[in-house]
Amino acid sequence: MLRIALVQMNPHVGNIEGNLEQIKDFTAQAVAAEAGLVVFPELAICGYPPLDLLLFDDFLSNCEQAIQLLLPLSEKIDIIVGGPSRNSRLEGKNLFNSAWHLSGGKVKAKVNKTLLPTYDVFDEYRYFEPNVVFQVVECKGVKIALTICEDLWNLDSDPMYVKNPMDELMELKPDLMVNIASSPFSDIQMGNRVGVLRKNVEQYNLPLIYVNQVGGQTDLIFDGHSIALNKDGSPALKLVGFDSQMASLDFDGEAFIGEPLAFTHEVAEVYTHQALLLGIRDFFQKQNFKTAIFGLSGGVDSALVATLAAQALGKENILAVMMPSEYSSEHSISDSIKLAENLGIKCIKVPITEGFNTLLETLEPHFEGKSPGLAEENLQARLRGNILMALSNKHGHIVLNTSNKSELAVGYGTLYGDMCGGLSVIGDLYKTQVYSLCNYLNSKKGIIPQNILDKAPSAELRPDQKDSDSLPDYETLDSILYQYIELNQTADSLIQQGFHQETVLKTIQLVNCSEYKRKQFAPILRLSQRAFGGGRRMPIVAKF
Amino acid sequence: MLRIALVQMNPHVGNIEGNLEQIKDFTAQAVAAEAGLVVFPELAICGYPPLDLLLFDDFLSNCEQAIQLLLPLSEKIDIIVGGPSRNSRLEGKNLFNSAWHLSGGKVKAKVNKTLLPTYDVFDEYRYFEPNVVFQVVECKGVKIALTICEDLWNLDSDPMYVKNPMDELMELKPDLMVNIASSPFSDIQMGNRVGVLRKNVEQYNLPLIYVNQVGGQTDLIFDGHSIALNKDGSPALKLVGFDSQMASLDFDGEAFIGEPLAFTHEVAEVYTHQALLLGIRDFFQKQNFKTAIFGLSGGVDSALVATLAAQALGKENILAVMMPSEYSSEHSISDSIKLAENLGIKCIKVPITEGFNTLLETLEPHFEGKSPGLAEENLQARLRGNILMALSNKHGHIVLNTSNKSELAVGYGTLYGDMCGGLSVIGDLYKTQVYSLCNYLNSKKGIIPQNILDKAPSAELRPDQKDSDSLPDYETLDSILYQYIELNQTADSLIQQGFHQETVLKTIQLVNCSEYKRKQFAPILRLSQRAFGGGRRMPIVAKF
Repeated sequence: MLRIALVQMNPHVGNIEGNLEQIKDFTAQAVAAEAGLVVFPELAICGYPPLDLLLFDDFLSNCEQAIQLLLPLSEKIDIIVGGPSRNSRLEGKNLFNSAWHLSGGKVKAKVNKTLLPTYDVFDEYRYFEPNVVFQVVECKGVKIALTICEDLWNLDSDPMYVKNPMDELMELKPDLMVNIASSPFSDIQMGNRVGVLRKNVEQYNLPLIYVNQVGGQTDLIFDGHSIALNKDGSPALKLVGFDSQMASLDFDGEAFIGEPLAFTHEVAEVYTHQALLLGIRDFFQKQNFKTAIFGLSGGVDSALVATLAAQALGKENILAVMMPSEYSSEHSISDSIKLAENLGIKCIKVPITEGFNTLLETLEPHFEGKSPGLAEENLQARLRGNILMALSNKHGHIVLNTSNKSELAVGYGTLYGDMCGGLSVIGDLYKTQVYSLCNYLNSKKGIIPQNILDKAPSAELRPDQKDSDSLPDYETLDSILYQYIELNQTADSLIQQGFHQETVLKTIQLVNCSEYKRKQFAPILRLSQRAFGGGRRMPIVAKF
Repeated sequence: MLRIALVQMNPHVGNIEGNLEQIKDFTAQAVAAEAGLVVFPELAICGYPPLDLLLFDDFLSNCEQAIQLLLPLSEKIDIIVGGPSRNSRLEGKNLFNSAWHLSGGKVKAKVNKTLLPTYDVFDEYRYFEPNVVFQVVECKGVKIALTICEDLWNLDSDPMYVKNPMDELMELKPDLMVNIASSPFSDIQMGNRVGVLRKNVEQYNLPLIYVNQVGGQTDLIFDGHSIALNKDGSPALKLVGFDSQMASLDFDGEAFIGEPLAFTHEVAEVYTHQALLLGIRDFFQKQNFKTAIFGLSGGVDSALVATLAAQALGKENILAVMMPSEYSSEHSISDSIKLAENLGIKCIKVPITEGFNTLLETLEPHFEGKSPGLAEENLQARLRGNILMALSNKHGHIVLNTSNKSELAVGYGTLYGDMCGGLSVIGDLYKTQVYSLCNYLNSKKGIIPQNILDKAPSAELRPDQKDSDSLPDYETLDSILYQYIELNQTADSLIQQGFHQETVLKTIQLVNCSEYKRKQFAPILRLSQRAFGGGRRMPIVAKF
């Protein structure tokens, strides 16, 4: 009988020393739990994704050295841990994405990743050579088909790769599948992932252990949810979501011991909420920042960011700034103050009126008498950006951006103004999703004043402005945006679905013309299968 | 005898209709020149790099349709043209990067790219399946080994790919190599490229025709320099750099007819200068913009940008803005005015003093009595950014950024302040290279006042500030930066070379801590093998 410990750890990209300490601590815990094998996630040594750090020789040497420093611990327990390794063959890329099997104080085996995801946010073929030789890993009599993340993700009806590593490994008659992964969260990924894992169990008729990374890595949020599946597809062990955890189970050579568990499902907002809290928290903690600042406009977007920030960082670490202008409505201030009171966060008022008037005077001779418009509107937004950045510089807060995905999509935001900030918290939530999440949070505990949720959205940059003056209603807009951005649907197919032709064409045009703004935007916490940022790479100077 | 026309064209990414028109025009010219074969660059149909436009079904259909519309023209002349094509096999990625051979009104052959560059700025494996079957293309009795760009780039001593397509093609006994390419400019690329092409000629003992794309595509600049090489490595035909051109030569079945030409070499600044002019011009023209605005500080960086912008866009299309503060020196203004006079460009003065004082008053109650420092310095820079953006919004100018690579590297710039702008012109030139290029331009015609080149660099954000207060001298700094950024050298290797340990560690630390700023920066015209931007992908929330 083999007791296997699954370690769902939260590494810090590039912090090899810190990650090694975590691995050592968990290994000691696994030994104390009398496990014979402890399994860590993909690239746990360096954290995922290491990106171009992989191009530095000392970075790779430090990763290799970390493996050497783990060897003595493998006298007491077998260790499977992910880390990069060098390709000794002259031809091909210089690295592999590897799973190291340490046993008896030695490197007993090294298994390399075969299928290298190179799409969406993934760039693995940029660094790694694909594996072409197949071996099973033997641990105390158990033959393990050891694979790395994407290696199990090719059972689709339109497979992205020409071969399946598990097909090769099956010829070596393994007893158990083990997959180490760094699979980021998205709203549909968790369902997809369980589906893919169960499909493997079914196809190969083997139980499976799946160990996933957890934690926020800049824009990417890894949700954990590591799992062991019985041959029949039922869970034998489930680890938590959005937190690090170690747990173990026993394998008798054919099956896991114990009663099967049930799958549980929550509504989407539960996961989105937890993902955002983890993403914010790790963005700050891993950079040694404690305090956040943002503009509180009285609108729903900043209300949501305020709520999430207070929950993630603690109400004492938040500074909300109201920056009214002459176009600001009464309720902007009163609603903001009410929200800040509900949250117990500090809220200050820094009006932009005088700064705006002074700059208008400075600029007036150079505006050549042209009538007021975009320049004046954007100037207000940029003055607010200046104020937030000045307070950030003075007090050491990180500026949280409050833009939502709908406005980022259509370019309804001012570069260097309301588009400023070190982290975009809700930039991967469409406006309708912002409302849903607010309603969900309010359903648990009424925090966000109802008036914020009820009033019509407005940028308040000119008298009586409303979003609906220049945009279709958000239900329609978000539906078009979702299909264009997430599903790469064409204008024709949207029109065929019944959307108004002019609305479709205008919306797509707005999205395409705003690439230059998004190019200069903050990292966005990724919640969907297609967030703006590294997962969507569109040309700027293009016609389409 | 086969007359072959090489078309070095300047496509517009995504503008399939416009590119098709160009291809048709050039084909007619080739017919008029009595050529039997006309050769266009890699992905000429859609422009390179199309990026995630390749994920849209209508985009692909339009590319395929463009090929169909070219077929009638192939009644009179064989056409080789690059474009994407769909992979009919279910397994593997859904697309190929293809060279279409059109002849007699039909698609006679389609050759797919084997080696897919996925490093630096290239992401081809994100989209394309590599080719695995090999065929020669036959054109009027000549057997052509047709390959696409990277396919010839694997003769290195540490090859990145495990196989060479030309090794496979040689078994089919071709008479001639033809390579269609989209190979971007960099300071060392042109030398490397000729070396690689000559190595192929030598290795395979065949003459070679190489047709490269030309033109600016956002940050990437394609230099053209298409060439035909005789078996002995001498040029049989050379096309110009940095402009579109068609030229033809005759092939007798074994060799090109005519006297061999000589190679020519220019100093690096000649190419850098031409690349920058093309990059600026295409950035504007392809977006239908005409006019540029930027801040003129009296320093060397903005002086260079002013000169380049005036040369690329015409002096009548330039608006330079002097934005003095109380810390600005006399010579900032006088040198700027002198430069503007030399260039014949419009130059206005918009002081920031009043705006700065008003905002300081607004912010004062919230600065909590902390002594003046970074917040006040950055506020000045951001006010300048506001003014440029306001004038841009009002008059429709594109803001040119004036930051150099040295300051971008160490984070010596203010986000949303002097880091604002739609295009970074000299963000891939180290400070020492900025001086070199200025001296080169002045050597042709004295434009930049000598005092600008002689005075000590300063940001002028506090009294008597000098860059050298907080940075090592630029010769040392740039040497360290070059090795760290371009060559991925480690701190240890730099210290072993004799650089001061503290300077090396501090410099690398500054580079690493500034990723968050560069994440939000404009596209940078790429001039080196490793520009900031898509070619260098570093994690933000990381420890290294």
